[in-house]
Amino acid sequence: MAIALGQNQYGKAETRVLRVYRDSDRHEIRDLAVSTSLRGDFADAHTRGDQAHVLPTDSQKNTCFAYAKEKGVGEIEDYAMELARHFTADVPYVSGARVEVDEYRWDRVAVAAARHPAGQPPDGRPGHGHTFVRAGPDVRTTAVTVEGRGSRQRAWVVSGLKDLLVLKSTGSEFSGFLTDRYTTLQETGDRVLATSLTARWRYGSAETDWGEAYRQIRQILLGRFATTHSLALQQTLWEMGSAVLRERTDVAEIRLSAPNRHHFLVDLAPFGLANDGEVFYAADRPYGLIQCCVERDDAPDPGTAWHGPGAFA
Amino acid sequence: MAIALGQNQYGKAETRVLRVYRDSDRHEIRDLAVSTSLRGDFADAHTRGDQAHVLPTDSQKNTCFAYAKEKGVGEIEDYAMELARHFTADVPYVSGARVEVDEYRWDRVAVAAARHPAGQPPDGRPGHGHTFVRAGPDVRTTAVTVEGRGSRQRAWVVSGLKDLLVLKSTGSEFSGFLTDRYTTLQETGDRVLATSLTARWRYGSAETDWGEAYRQIRQILLGRFATTHSLALQQTLWEMGSAVLRERTDVAEIRLSAPNRHHFLVDLAPFGLANDGEVFYAADRPYGLIQCCVERDDAPDPGTAWHGPGAFA
Amino acid sequence: MAIALGQNQYGKAETRVLRVYRDSDRHEIRDLAVSTSLRGDFADAHTRGDQAHVLPTDSQKNTCFAYAKEKGVGEIEDYAMELARHFTADVPYVSGARVEVDEYRWDRVAVAAARHPAGQPPDGRPGHGHTFVRAGPDVRTTAVTVEGRGSRQRAWVVSGLKDLLVLKSTGSEFSGFLTDRYTTLQETGDRVLATSLTARWRYGSAETDWGEAYRQIRQILLGRFATTHSLALQQTLWEMGSAVLRERTDVAEIRLSAPNRHHFLVDLAPFGLANDGEVFYAADRPYGLIQCCVERDDAPDPGTAWHGPGAFA
Amino acid sequence: MAIALGQNQYGKAETRVLRVYRDSDRHEIRDLAVSTSLRGDFADAHTRGDQAHVLPTDSQKNTCFAYAKEKGVGEIEDYAMELARHFTADVPYVSGARVEVDEYRWDRVAVAAARHPAGQPPDGRPGHGHTFVRAGPDVRTTAVTVEGRGSRQRAWVVSGLKDLLVLKSTGSEFSGFLTDRYTTLQETGDRVLATSLTARWRYGSAETDWGEAYRQIRQILLGRFATTHSLALQQTLWEMGSAVLRERTDVAEIRLSAPNRHHFLVDLAPFGLANDGEVFYAADRPYGLIQCCVERDDAPDPGTAWHGPGAFA
Repeated sequence: MAIALGQNQYGKAETRVLRVYRDSDRHEIRDLAVSTSLRGDFADAHTRGDQAHVLPTDSQKNTCFAYAKEKGVGEIEDYAMELARHFTADVPYVSGARVEVDEYRWDRVAVAAARHPAGQPPDGRPGHGHTFVRAGPDVRTTAVTVEGRGSRQRAWVVSGLKDLLVLKSTGSEFSGFLTDRYTTLQETGDRVLATSLTARWRYGSAETDWGEAYRQIRQILLGRFATTHSLALQQTLWEMGSAVLRERTDVAEIRLSAPNRHHFLVDLAPFGLANDGEVFYAADRPYGLIQCCVERDDAPDPGTAWHGPGAFA
Repeated sequence: MAIALGQNQYGKAETRVLRVYRDSDRHEIRDLAVSTSLRGDFADAHTRGDQAHVLPTDSQKNTCFAYAKEKGVGEIEDYAMELARHFTADVPYVSGARVEVDEYRWDRVAVAAARHPAGQPPDGRPGHGHTFVRAGPDVRTTAVTVEGRGSRQRAWVVSGLKDLLVLKSTGSEFSGFLTDRYTTLQETGDRVLATSLTARWRYGSAETDWGEAYRQIRQILLGRFATTHSLALQQTLWEMGSAVLRERTDVAEIRLSAPNRHHFLVDLAPFGLANDGEVFYAADRPYGLIQCCVERDDAPDPGTAWHGPGAFA
Repeated sequence: MAIALGQNQYGKAETRVLRVYRDSDRHEIRDLAVSTSLRGDFADAHTRGDQAHVLPTDSQKNTCFAYAKEKGVGEIEDYAMELARHFTADVPYVSGARVEVDEYRWDRVAVAAARHPAGQPPDGRPGHGHTFVRAGPDVRTTAVTVEGRGSRQRAWVVSGLKDLLVLKSTGSEFSGFLTDRYTTLQETGDRVLATSLTARWRYGSAETDWGEAYRQIRQILLGRFATTHSLALQQTLWEMGSAVLRERTDVAEIRLSAPNRHHFLVDLAPFGLANDGEVFYAADRPYGLIQCCVERDDAPDPGTAWHGPGAFA
Repeated sequence: MAIALGQNQYGKAETRVLRVYRDSDRHEIRDLAVSTSLRGDFADAHTRGDQAHVLPTDSQKNTCFAYAKEKGVGEIEDYAMELARHFTADVPYVSGARVEVDEYRWDRVAVAAARHPAGQPPDGRPGHGHTFVRAGPDVRTTAVTVEGRGSRQRAWVVSGLKDLLVLKSTGSEFSGFLTDRYTTLQETGDRVLATSLTARWRYGSAETDWGEAYRQIRQILLGRFATTHSLALQQTLWEMGSAVLRERTDVAEIRLSAPNRHHFLVDLAPFGLANDGEVFYAADRPYGLIQCCVERDDAPDPGTAWHGPGAFA
């Protein structure tokens, strides 16, 4: 019978790594969730149960920890690239690897020194410059894909952010849309526009100042969301995405996914009250979901950048 | 500058529909979450903010409700197909649609009639045959994709299940694996194997007895998980998937995704106790993640079955 | 300044224990989440940072694992009682303990023997009677509180269930309610009634057949929900709770908490369709929340049964 | 039979209210989740199904929206107090009310004016000062309880915060603890200390500058967490709580609940690497849970402040 193994991959998901840099009198921390997946010659593991080609996911987890020490984390793109290259180059039977990293943001806690002399303990204990508070909820992400070995090795970096909640209390309308038998929605010239943005952008090369690029792109996305008079989420996303491509020539493509977090104007008329855009009900489900890609015509081939070599999604 | 709109889609996600069939003296219910996404000629909505081609997501939601009444739900594959065909055929500017439906399972509550005479109220009130209790946690799913119009219209059905938690307390080993510098894992001849299975299978045609197929495939997956002596999750998944393809000739391809819900043997030796596979610690993260596809060599072209015509994943 | 330490407690939360009983050719499993909290003479730990009275939460976790082996799990009430008595009686400085256990339900996977001869492997490998599938989503719970030592030791058992989703498609009305300036709700003679029930009942004594009691009470709750023509959730809860107290004389008190999972009738009139209780929209938030206690007048003193000796809630 | 209705309450939970203040050229927003619960003479609703005393939860929801317009939100303590007093004073049969409000924090998006001239649209469209980005993950909370009518009315305000994630990369030790047969934990002189703090404090009076108090208390909690050399979470919480009471004489009592988000030092020795507090594994479950109350000896009677008059917890 013509039944065959198709695409497949395996790895260790969501290894939670905290890396502390202690070299100065003010520690730096990097707080990560790391997921690895490998693709290669694993047919026998499936069809015969023979694991001789399979590096355990436990070893992949150990590697994430060891590399956090040996190579350091630096920018998550560098760390993911080191890991993906290692798996592809050094582990037999592996033909490609994908490493995804989420980074959680922490701010250093500011303490007024004068009011807290305890911060400078006389007995040599560490001071209070080593304390952090989680900032968010948005999370920085990357997914690095490496395929092939030696001179034929290729690599792609897709970085992004998720859970970036933004809201405009005005400057958004929705009108002139298509209607059909099932349309009851009224046009509106002034509504609340809110979303929890996921953005992922593919870099055209495997080298750039990742941290600087991330900070600038995040700011462009926020800024364009703010300054665009929205005629629809589609148009807002286009404005945001194309602004990123205009300002960052190292970005080949950006994908934006935006649930429309509906805020419905509450009808207060039954209570004898006007409601001129002042009181809204924030709904959970259902929600509109708008997704688009903005790309450069002459961008290099995406290869397996978006899904990895095992492309299982 | 050569910046262009790439793939895009939009729709209404997670509309929660309860459909009650009241025609008999024992109601039937169908409890669904429905997500629609449309693709087509929406460039102007993005680049110029012109919504003339855009049917609001609110109208899509209304359509889900109206079709639950007009066409009924029947099997979720039929309901999704009706909706996807409608959007593609009847809505201008739409060239393809994808409708995803999750169905939550409810069992009728059994009541001992003799003990609960209140169940047959003398005043004409309804009896107690209309009460249900959620069964789960596993959820039945489908994703129907339709592309093109008229005689060129094509359709794909990918059905599945998710959150099917299964566990074997024995009959699983893991040994003979590849090792490297970072390997510390010991071989084991008897371990707990547990996963939360996601399975999705693509039907080769757009017509079958969807309900019967679903029930049989779910039972094959459970049965093969039970009867396969596991040498690794990879092999177990292969056995499960290939069994489905052997027994259901209408399935072209099945994709299985299985997080390895690790259960670690607790070391009780410090307390002077043996632990012969009796006490385990169930860990949350990280987890192995094993994914594979089992396919028929001569299966028809998958087209955009897996991602829909807007393929944004 | 008159600043003092008030109530306090500490412990280890959500230790996930899987206990496998391997003595027969068909294993039995118990899947638990265990949380312990201790109260006692811990003032110095707070005000001076002196841990001499503090048994680490890590040791409490180890005790949960060791007791699962030594004492076995049996019914979760027995297991929790063993742990709570141990902490209170055997650990210095501890004056009271509370142990909460959630138990996840698993069904054995049924396999048709004839079709799966692989289930009886010729090489002595274990058969397929050791495979389980999660049933749910409802979870069985208990919270055992022990206070004092020796002859003055007292113990309370509060057992329950949570996440029991039930739904009636008819047999529920809501009318004759109080109205005020802010009331817009219409009366209804036939609505969907759904909830995710949490029930907790306090036993009057520390000894009973816990498993049998649990199964009977769960069935009473389901049965009364089914057979009661609902005039409001308040009345339905009262009927359910008082039925439990009538049928189980060992239950002193039962507390029921029921979010009203609203299902709103969808207005299909704009589409020229009737909707006679056939299509509903299941809303997430906000939700009504109805809570009540049904108790026996002559019930023994609840002591710290509901919150434990450290009563922090 | 001596079966009676015990404590009970009902209300509408998690009404999501967005209040927009549009009076200036830079809007202000308040984003809330509001839960109300009422207690009073509701016995007939339970035992006879008679709803004549029951104001629907839907009306309570409407009241939350109407009050957000009529009274405004101001500080959440004021808003909750208005609602709770209204329900208790104006709704027949209600003897007490509890209103809980969570407030989500949003920062205004800063836009560099020069780079975004689109922000000053020539056609009279609103500029970009109305755009916000969610800050968090910590959430401000309050629970206002009102009991009785007229001159006998009493009110309590318990405010707080939750999901405040804080982490120290050093300045934390844990040693000198009690050990028993089940203790395997090693002492440590330098560990990572992290928690997701929930704090709730009861004000001694029903009037203060709520916003200023909240900001100061949040800062005291952060500052003391930073500057306290931790000998245990118990001592850290005591230091944080007592600092609040010292600096805010209007706070009668503070309760702190802190899951110990364990970060375990990874053993890198098998890979020939040292690990001097540089690489940690962040675990999910189980977790230590430390809870304590710091109170003023001469604080006024808490009444039903912590649980409300229906005290169902």
